[in-house]
Amino acid sequence: MPGAMRLGIVGGGQLGRMLALSAANLGVDCSFVDPAPDAGAAIVARQIEAPYDAIDALIELAESTDVVTFEFENVPAPALDAIASHGQIAPPPQSLAASQDRLTEKQLFDSLGIAVAPYRNVESLAELELAVEQLGRPAILKTRRLGYDGKGQARIEEASDLLHAWEQVGELPSVLEAMVPFDRELSVIATRSASGEVVVYPLTENVHRAGILRTSTVPAAGETAHRAQAETWATTLLEELNHVGTLALELFVRGDELIANEFAPRVHNSGHWTIDAAPTSQFENHVRAVLDLPLGAVRPAQPCTMINLIGGMPDAAEVLAIPGAKLHDYAKQPRAGRKIGHITVVPVDGHEHETSVREAIELAERTTV
Amino acid sequence: MPGAMRLGIVGGGQLGRMLALSAANLGVDCSFVDPAPDAGAAIVARQIEAPYDAIDALIELAESTDVVTFEFENVPAPALDAIASHGQIAPPPQSLAASQDRLTEKQLFDSLGIAVAPYRNVESLAELELAVEQLGRPAILKTRRLGYDGKGQARIEEASDLLHAWEQVGELPSVLEAMVPFDRELSVIATRSASGEVVVYPLTENVHRAGILRTSTVPAAGETAHRAQAETWATTLLEELNHVGTLALELFVRGDELIANEFAPRVHNSGHWTIDAAPTSQFENHVRAVLDLPLGAVRPAQPCTMINLIGGMPDAAEVLAIPGAKLHDYAKQPRAGRKIGHITVVPVDGHEHETSVREAIELAERTTV
Repeated sequence: MPGAMRLGIVGGGQLGRMLALSAANLGVDCSFVDPAPDAGAAIVARQIEAPYDAIDALIELAESTDVVTFEFENVPAPALDAIASHGQIAPPPQSLAASQDRLTEKQLFDSLGIAVAPYRNVESLAELELAVEQLGRPAILKTRRLGYDGKGQARIEEASDLLHAWEQVGELPSVLEAMVPFDRELSVIATRSASGEVVVYPLTENVHRAGILRTSTVPAAGETAHRAQAETWATTLLEELNHVGTLALELFVRGDELIANEFAPRVHNSGHWTIDAAPTSQFENHVRAVLDLPLGAVRPAQPCTMINLIGGMPDAAEVLAIPGAKLHDYAKQPRAGRKIGHITVVPVDGHEHETSVREAIELAERTTV
Repeated sequence: MPGAMRLGIVGGGQLGRMLALSAANLGVDCSFVDPAPDAGAAIVARQIEAPYDAIDALIELAESTDVVTFEFENVPAPALDAIASHGQIAPPPQSLAASQDRLTEKQLFDSLGIAVAPYRNVESLAELELAVEQLGRPAILKTRRLGYDGKGQARIEEASDLLHAWEQVGELPSVLEAMVPFDRELSVIATRSASGEVVVYPLTENVHRAGILRTSTVPAAGETAHRAQAETWATTLLEELNHVGTLALELFVRGDELIANEFAPRVHNSGHWTIDAAPTSQFENHVRAVLDLPLGAVRPAQPCTMINLIGGMPDAAEVLAIPGAKLHDYAKQPRAGRKIGHITVVPVDGHEHETSVREAIELAERTTV
């Protein structure tokens, strides 16, 4: 429609798809760049079928939209430059840059007073040996760049693990992190608009297995105790980066302490529950933020649990027969370890919420590959 | 995606668009037939650009989907026959037929014990004179077929209005209805699945002006008093018609009494609030119903008011600045009297809900054309 707001998205997987679906309600016209011929966002947005680093495609995206945003943070700098010189970009390149490198990310946390686990920069086997001496074992070695869902990581339990670990991270610049024994994993999702308005979602409690998020639950155990700290950190981070859009900060709880793990300068898997249980989803608030519209309310009226569907899709009828269950099918080809959908469960009168949650988890686990 | 459920929709206006958007979350692949080159549903579904009575297009729709449904009830019988003989159809043709003719609709209500205002069949000016004598004045003359948003209607106040009224309805077969002075207008939305499962949304209180719906509010004043009656009527109607999908029954409240006005065998404007305030929207439950999936919960956790945007679109930033306001922009060309979007307002902590509702109504009224 003439005069409609136009949003460009780099990436058309499930995050791009959910961004475009929430933009559609606002009458926002979406386009995206993605090389996959069966990209999930194509159902609701115009696709420019091209690799993420195809400069001409990115320029086309920038020139045909009001603002360009991202469903992932690992955008090469030349791509960012091309977009920025041909249009508006949000979040700003410094947000993506800070999260692309584990070392600069931790240094940023340090500089902002956001607690992190002890870490060391590692650029050689010799430095790894020294770092392990200083931090002790167990520890975890992670490449500085391009880490995702447990890839590019190696655990160091024994002194004899060092060489193998160094090889496993491809002998690339890495960070050694002390393994913090934590009680719980939380995340806090927050959105900052182009005008500087900030909203912070309640803390989400997350369960990972094999490095992949399995469930997210609100309210998190620890919401009351840790809310203020998490909100301060998220807000500080958003403002320091001059971030525009949604951002997720992953946290560990150890006793009374919060420790930041990492942040993602984008909508995040642990915020998918917001579609069904918050007045405004993380996706809609991201869209509002980058288009400089007022942000929407974030406090859920009810508890909610989100369960990822990994590698296999349960029968839709079985999912929807669970009281309070909503199904999100990303229409992706099933593949082992691949997130292809999620279930959210909200309370329904006359049914035990915990029972529904347990049923949904069991169903998801039966089809997990 | 191979193996995905496939839904066909006749009509790609805002109702088709919102059906397709909710189907997208479930991973359902949608196609629709609509003659408009800028049909709203095209954003999220494959369009077969053809008139609604183009039999080859309808056959293509039926053969390329698992089930065909409708965003409007005035589907010609030959079109229904073509779809039914080449695929599945829901709701069934008898639901559409019953609602297409005001006389058969009222006779159906009578036969099911659903109270209606006194009425007379009118096929000539002479019959109109007799009917006015029997029912008294004021009364309202409505064509039996194709009535919509106050068109094809004429009010009879004075004896001298008869000839003009008869001309105004095009001298077509009509129904004269006694004008029932009512206290409030309500509607009840209900969904029945192919397996016979029924869910009934809470009563919605509606305000019309100039024959066009302006606002819908839940909970309705009268929810407690009239809930059981409305639920019985809606369920009886769904079952009598063997209806599959969502249905809306419009009601008048006169003192302690409920009187049925008419029904729509489809998702309905007075149910748009369900997108933002019910656990499962009328659109999603319609999709679930016609695909024979279990239906979702319908009880809202909070109150909600929906405000139609008619003929003009307020500034998105102004809408979204209202606490608890969600904007739905159908991406339609503005035109006087045309529904081009809606606002829903849900309560937000720290803000007076009624104030937000009033602000949204004022904003909508300022841009109404």
